[in-house]
Amino acid sequence: MDEDVLYHLDLGTKTHNLPAMFGDVKFVCVGGSPNRMKSFALFMHKELGLGDDGDDMKDICAGTDRYCMYKAGPVLSISHGMGIPSISIMLHELIKLLHHARCCDVTIIRIGTSGGIGIAPGSVVITDTAVDSFFKPRFEQVILDNIVTRSTELDKELAEELFDCSKEIPNFPTLIGHTMCTYDFYEGQGRLDGALCSFSREKKLDYLKRAYKAGVRNIEMESTVFAAMCGLCGLKAAVVCVTLLDRLDCDQINLPHDVLVEYQQRPQLLISNFIKRRLGRREQMS
Amino acid sequence: MDEDVLYHLDLGTKTHNLPAMFGDVKFVCVGGSPNRMKSFALFMHKELGLGDDGDDMKDICAGTDRYCMYKAGPVLSISHGMGIPSISIMLHELIKLLHHARCCDVTIIRIGTSGGIGIAPGSVVITDTAVDSFFKPRFEQVILDNIVTRSTELDKELAEELFDCSKEIPNFPTLIGHTMCTYDFYEGQGRLDGALCSFSREKKLDYLKRAYKAGVRNIEMESTVFAAMCGLCGLKAAVVCVTLLDRLDCDQINLPHDVLVEYQQRPQLLISNFIKRRLGRREQMS
Repeated sequence: MDEDVLYHLDLGTKTHNLPAMFGDVKFVCVGGSPNRMKSFALFMHKELGLGDDGDDMKDICAGTDRYCMYKAGPVLSISHGMGIPSISIMLHELIKLLHHARCCDVTIIRIGTSGGIGIAPGSVVITDTAVDSFFKPRFEQVILDNIVTRSTELDKELAEELFDCSKEIPNFPTLIGHTMCTYDFYEGQGRLDGALCSFSREKKLDYLKRAYKAGVRNIEMESTVFAAMCGLCGLKAAVVCVTLLDRLDCDQINLPHDVLVEYQQRPQLLISNFIKRRLGRREQMS
Repeated sequence: MDEDVLYHLDLGTKTHNLPAMFGDVKFVCVGGSPNRMKSFALFMHKELGLGDDGDDMKDICAGTDRYCMYKAGPVLSISHGMGIPSISIMLHELIKLLHHARCCDVTIIRIGTSGGIGIAPGSVVITDTAVDSFFKPRFEQVILDNIVTRSTELDKELAEELFDCSKEIPNFPTLIGHTMCTYDFYEGQGRLDGALCSFSREKKLDYLKRAYKAGVRNIEMESTVFAAMCGLCGLKAAVVCVTLLDRLDCDQINLPHDVLVEYQQRPQLLISNFIKRRLGRREQMS
């Protein structure tokens, strides 16, 4: 291709010097909410001691409102919206960006929110394997009119390393478990409070308990395609989500605002510690 | 339920007077991009002659960055992000909102952008039937671990009425056709320029030509679930998308900025004319 336009990021190989802009990136953190990914970038900027207060940090994708992107030293922070299709568009264009920028040894981590199953709200789940609605470790990608099944395994060593980091943070409930990824927040996750609901509370609980038995500890909407695409493209990947409620108890998220904010910061805190540890180790080696 | 929290809209039955805020809504317009839905609300505000210049129009969902929502008289304008899961969360909460607000006779229209097949870029496609990647008029909803197939038919009279409106606008290429809805922008739509691509140009063209033969004139990522949910909830629904490229010619969108902006305004212009016609007719009747 003469030119590659990364349409949904409003970047391109002819309009931007991608190696100069992104060549030093070693960590990519992605999450659904634009505001949260901006907060994370500002937090990393501060934690890495990158000079001024970061107030002038600009959205690199300001020319589009599909995604937002911020950079703090070697850390790129990008929003991906909600659901498999939304994150998959971003990942295609991000992976091409990393290629054009000639980045190497990149670690990519999704930090998000989720519904827990049988664990206390506020727990942080590090995903070992992402599973679909049938508790299977697979992502079914439609290619033209064929369905291709892809593996959703994540990097086991990276998950263990993150779990180690979590132990250094006081009062930080963390576990490793399967994460179920659905196409829908309401019917697909067994919620009784959507605009449409055709099943009973008993059927819901039966489903969620079977999920628990299969090793699922939380539910979100992006992990399978994230694991599949990163795996195929050789990126070491992890998923770290905090749970906002226990789905065995309720369907609606109605935590007090300050509690919600504190919970949402937990994955950020863990990843910040992880990145600082990795960078410290690299400095010692050099 | 004692209280219904519409979490992703940051609205609720206890925190907001939904009938007072939304009781007069007759038209709901939804689209992927937050900026475009704000522009549309400002445009409707002006077109309906609603007093001041609308500059102080506020995002009703400002407390969350998942979606944005604006109101111009009887017109509600809401963003839904990209892809089936993202629009489905919004629709669940919107449909509950309309119910709590006791709205009646609501018409809902998705205005968006799409890739065309065998038609000139800039054409406006009014969807008669939304089809999936296999050209079938169905939406497969996963409910717990069952797959339920739902109809994706849209309101035929509404589509005809919109087509009539289009004839009154000069130089406004419009057609009625099938719209294919995919879970992915790259592999799922036969693009050769994604981070992953396992098929040839020949296979791509064969697929898109078969789609054309099956009646598909454009491709986007939300229409099947939109048609299915609105149909089940008794909302008269339409999908009106402009095409930004002809997929038989290319994969990348690289229109000059001003052309892109003009194309994106076409569905807005059509819907504005439709709403003004409907409101004029209602005034004559009263």
